[in-house]
Amino acid sequence: MIAVLRAGCTTRAKAEIVRFVEQAGLRVVVSENDGRCEVGVAGEGAEALAAALAALPEVEEVRPAGAPYRLVSREHRDEPTRVKVDGVVVGGRALAIIAGPCAVESREQLAALVPSLVASGARMLRGGAFKPRSSPYSFQGLGRAGLELLAEARAAYGVSVVTEVLGPEDVALVAEYADVLQVGARNMQNFRLLAAVGEQPRPVLLKRGMMATIEELLLAAEYIAAAGNPRIILCERGIRTFEPTTRNTLDVAAVPALKERTHLPVLVDPSHAAGRRELVPALAYAAVAAGADGLIVEVHPDPDRAMSDGRQSLTPEGFRAMMDVVRQVATAVGRTVEEAQPHAR
Amino acid sequence: MIAVLRAGCTTRAKAEIVRFVEQAGLRVVVSENDGRCEVGVAGEGAEALAAALAALPEVEEVRPAGAPYRLVSREHRDEPTRVKVDGVVVGGRALAIIAGPCAVESREQLAALVPSLVASGARMLRGGAFKPRSSPYSFQGLGRAGLELLAEARAAYGVSVVTEVLGPEDVALVAEYADVLQVGARNMQNFRLLAAVGEQPRPVLLKRGMMATIEELLLAAEYIAAAGNPRIILCERGIRTFEPTTRNTLDVAAVPALKERTHLPVLVDPSHAAGRRELVPALAYAAVAAGADGLIVEVHPDPDRAMSDGRQSLTPEGFRAMMDVVRQVATAVGRTVEEAQPHAR
Amino acid sequence: MIAVLRAGCTTRAKAEIVRFVEQAGLRVVVSENDGRCEVGVAGEGAEALAAALAALPEVEEVRPAGAPYRLVSREHRDEPTRVKVDGVVVGGRALAIIAGPCAVESREQLAALVPSLVASGARMLRGGAFKPRSSPYSFQGLGRAGLELLAEARAAYGVSVVTEVLGPEDVALVAEYADVLQVGARNMQNFRLLAAVGEQPRPVLLKRGMMATIEELLLAAEYIAAAGNPRIILCERGIRTFEPTTRNTLDVAAVPALKERTHLPVLVDPSHAAGRRELVPALAYAAVAAGADGLIVEVHPDPDRAMSDGRQSLTPEGFRAMMDVVRQVATAVGRTVEEAQPHAR
Amino acid sequence: MIAVLRAGCTTRAKAEIVRFVEQAGLRVVVSENDGRCEVGVAGEGAEALAAALAALPEVEEVRPAGAPYRLVSREHRDEPTRVKVDGVVVGGRALAIIAGPCAVESREQLAALVPSLVASGARMLRGGAFKPRSSPYSFQGLGRAGLELLAEARAAYGVSVVTEVLGPEDVALVAEYADVLQVGARNMQNFRLLAAVGEQPRPVLLKRGMMATIEELLLAAEYIAAAGNPRIILCERGIRTFEPTTRNTLDVAAVPALKERTHLPVLVDPSHAAGRRELVPALAYAAVAAGADGLIVEVHPDPDRAMSDGRQSLTPEGFRAMMDVVRQVATAVGRTVEEAQPHAR
Repeated sequence: MIAVLRAGCTTRAKAEIVRFVEQAGLRVVVSENDGRCEVGVAGEGAEALAAALAALPEVEEVRPAGAPYRLVSREHRDEPTRVKVDGVVVGGRALAIIAGPCAVESREQLAALVPSLVASGARMLRGGAFKPRSSPYSFQGLGRAGLELLAEARAAYGVSVVTEVLGPEDVALVAEYADVLQVGARNMQNFRLLAAVGEQPRPVLLKRGMMATIEELLLAAEYIAAAGNPRIILCERGIRTFEPTTRNTLDVAAVPALKERTHLPVLVDPSHAAGRRELVPALAYAAVAAGADGLIVEVHPDPDRAMSDGRQSLTPEGFRAMMDVVRQVATAVGRTVEEAQPHAR
Repeated sequence: MIAVLRAGCTTRAKAEIVRFVEQAGLRVVVSENDGRCEVGVAGEGAEALAAALAALPEVEEVRPAGAPYRLVSREHRDEPTRVKVDGVVVGGRALAIIAGPCAVESREQLAALVPSLVASGARMLRGGAFKPRSSPYSFQGLGRAGLELLAEARAAYGVSVVTEVLGPEDVALVAEYADVLQVGARNMQNFRLLAAVGEQPRPVLLKRGMMATIEELLLAAEYIAAAGNPRIILCERGIRTFEPTTRNTLDVAAVPALKERTHLPVLVDPSHAAGRRELVPALAYAAVAAGADGLIVEVHPDPDRAMSDGRQSLTPEGFRAMMDVVRQVATAVGRTVEEAQPHAR
Repeated sequence: MIAVLRAGCTTRAKAEIVRFVEQAGLRVVVSENDGRCEVGVAGEGAEALAAALAALPEVEEVRPAGAPYRLVSREHRDEPTRVKVDGVVVGGRALAIIAGPCAVESREQLAALVPSLVASGARMLRGGAFKPRSSPYSFQGLGRAGLELLAEARAAYGVSVVTEVLGPEDVALVAEYADVLQVGARNMQNFRLLAAVGEQPRPVLLKRGMMATIEELLLAAEYIAAAGNPRIILCERGIRTFEPTTRNTLDVAAVPALKERTHLPVLVDPSHAAGRRELVPALAYAAVAAGADGLIVEVHPDPDRAMSDGRQSLTPEGFRAMMDVVRQVATAVGRTVEEAQPHAR
Repeated sequence: MIAVLRAGCTTRAKAEIVRFVEQAGLRVVVSENDGRCEVGVAGEGAEALAAALAALPEVEEVRPAGAPYRLVSREHRDEPTRVKVDGVVVGGRALAIIAGPCAVESREQLAALVPSLVASGARMLRGGAFKPRSSPYSFQGLGRAGLELLAEARAAYGVSVVTEVLGPEDVALVAEYADVLQVGARNMQNFRLLAAVGEQPRPVLLKRGMMATIEELLLAAEYIAAAGNPRIILCERGIRTFEPTTRNTLDVAAVPALKERTHLPVLVDPSHAAGRRELVPALAYAAVAAGADGLIVEVHPDPDRAMSDGRQSLTPEGFRAMMDVVRQVATAVGRTVEEAQPHAR
């Protein structure tokens, strides 16, 4: 149980609160972060003291030490959150379609790809400039040069840009170029990064860790919301199981299960779940049928020569064919997909 | 590596084959089952001996010791298998819809339920007479009396009957009443039961074990096919993972992954995957969108008073509403759902 | 909730009980198995009726429908069960050491192996005559001929014999030859097999399913105990996880977790968990250190030429070296390993 | 495949290399990080170009794009690495015993705890000042004040200090107080943090992610080593599985499996794996028996009143009793535990 004290609480007042708790036979720990003073209370019977503590004039709030998500919960806000990204709304009746290469490789790559993505119905471009790779010797992305290419594509083709940020120190840089900051699966519990993207105003696409529970995903989103940023988009991208046939196991039930619990929009990434392009369309249809608010899909103009993840990237033609069926499935469940837009912004 | 000898092979011929293998520095084990003699060959370099062995006059076939599925593979048969169950075809363009209670409880239960299932589009009735329960103290089903109630419902409402068989010794009894014999998830690697259902002519609905790989499911199906029965229907019903929000995690990618590998039809059971009725429709839509050949769904006239699995059973009204959307999703992916039929057969 | 009626309960008495339950607004299902009549009661508020039902003269017992294990629990019996197998006690201070090949292959194989196992401290011989194999085309074991070879080895070398039984129809045959009947991991929830081994007097070695929780293992044991056989030995052998380095993940914590809950002895099979002989000794030491009552280990006189599981089989020399350290670890945790015995019985 | 160019490579030389690769029909991506220029080459047949590229004068090294760990591998260095921490050696014959509270709470807490840890054989103190918590509302640790308390305990009781660092921006601060920097399980693939701890000289205790494979753990260690810091200590702490009885499943086989692959020392954390103090000793014995180089254990003077993880914390008496057996098990497998030291440094 934690008692949060009012700003400007005196040392004397703190000492009295500590004494009050200790007299009840409980342990007490005082910590100060950013000028906010919190009094942790532990021990059998701590909860019984909650009302008395809350009644003290210096106490602003008393809450359970391990309280689950609140700001992102349905209890806190019942109507769905719509995250506006430039002209696109994520979480409305229309599905948000994000497509693009795993990694940004060159201007030519984007030129060969983005117009066809737009023509097929994508309004947002994904592409990694900073890549989290299991091995330090794998291609780590183009860095700032990649961000610049994304910004060029944004101007040239009228797409919004979604790209990953790997650490708190890059947040300002990435936010300068991107419309949406992506927090990747491996960083879902990088709490410093969550706080950092929570302290800036760009929308955040938060991917579920490959072994994170639905509750942990919501708590990670709560870190962002608690830091001040309510513009959060969740993304299911497959979890790790014993099954070797797919790269990960798409937990399609996470879509309705999340929507029971949170007002935030939920996307699905069928590419990382499948791990092979042959399976991507079926997973995309399943995701839309299950109620996802959109898709984030890897597409590459020449997948066999991609720097990373070529095996799971669709070709532009494959993406177009898939989108034709996605539109049908969306209609079947009462959703729409935005029509293609003219290229110039 | 196993060399299968021709029927009627003499003891002397066998001895010569054994000597031949041993001279090559390999181990040999001779076993006879049902009059068929097999010579197992093991040791480094065994594969190099394969051609020489196959050339011996007494050797009918040489195959790898751990050969994967063959009869059920796409390589063996490229066009989809259609399993006919009475008037219904499983594996055709029309989806097979199987619905009914977890356990058969009474004539009244079925009377209150089955007509509405048929009206909503189900053509096959599921219902357990023999129930596999984790605890010996849980309700184990009505047994033969349950089978009789199912057969009555079959006659009264014109539905085919799918019900589970728990052991080889029950196969004849269950086959007397049922149109389709179900092998449950816990028995997916009960090899004696697989052989027994393979030796009789009724179609078999084989459910994936909750921790079985896709390859193991296909090998289990191969046991049935190898015993002589090609009328096999596979069923994905969720696998066991770390995620506690759902009873199991529906591996929706198993649908396209199975269809890449096998010509057998693939159903999905959204009820056992979800574990809660609220999530069942979303999983059913996802399954159909991903290419499933049908659904098997738990429905109960009064779920809160069900003897088992009430929490995951739809009401008849819930099933009807779900089927309305299932029809839309089926159309979106080029499939159909049979219209409701008149009740009398 | 289930009300078990007294033997000889009249039809009229049953009807009254049914009426009594229905008047309370609850559902009722009557089933009869082996002359025992059980009345299942379901619906909200069923538990509130328990006391009233138990007070009826015709009701012998009222219990929850999904009651967990009882006979195998610490609550039922606090002191450890010692299962006597011939001269060996499983569950006492001395560890039970079971060793042998994955599959029985020939008289020569056993002759080359068993004396050295005994010399190293094993008192029980394992070896499969009926092998459960994922593929129908893999070596399925020698069958009855394998049992005869095991019985010969028993007579010749003074070891007890542990071997697997695959189906209820084989129980009588296997029990004729074996001292301990093994139920394999894939059959842990083959409830008909559990009942069958529970109805005969030989001790049963029950292996944990690779997908089964500790609670499910105990419930499977309860099936055996409830059928009348209290001589049950549990065995942890690794569970299925995402980690590919080992064949399975040895859940070494299952040893103390089981011992908290049950009075039954707990063995560990390090061979199937490891999947590679290099890792077997470390897992064996870990198991003994964690409190296991013994080990079941695969050893083969010539592992590279084994018909199955050669990769995880120790050589006799490897087994001897491992047992030297096992003795030290056993002493460290207050246990002993029986000294080697003379070969003749 | 990546070609690393020599420092000072001219723009003209780069352009020629790019042309060379493109003429071979392959894709090329040039990236510059910290003045180091890397040329990524992708497409079918890329590997065939490796030798020709390596022969170019401007190319320093050619390596596979996804090369696994090298510096931390047995191939790179065959003899075990011994990490010296003050007077203690981690990875030698003597086990390293690290003990302490989950979170540093107060001077009194440490005073009540540390002398008894030392008396029981611990030479290193663990304790969190910055705590990674799933919920933003859980106790986050005392921060810098906690570090100061740890440093005080270090001076007062002669223990080395191990404490967690949550982000790159804290590395300098934590390194000022701690002897060993811990990277927690949730941050195992926080690649920016790995690089940051790799660029400073303090030893690093790297915990396996609860979802990470053994190979991923080694690759994470490679990030640290590649950044310049070879003083790495690995730690197995349980992985996430379907089993609910324990908080995580201790993968005890990871100890020998890691030692096959790497020269780095491997510790085990039995506390986080068990999740309940009753199971901690058995897991500690298992870890030592399996070959672990030491233990990191949570101990609290009053676990029921701990601010976090009290359920899995041993009492000082429990720790002492456990260490008595740990010593016996260590001896059984040829290891030792350092005797208790006098308190003053």
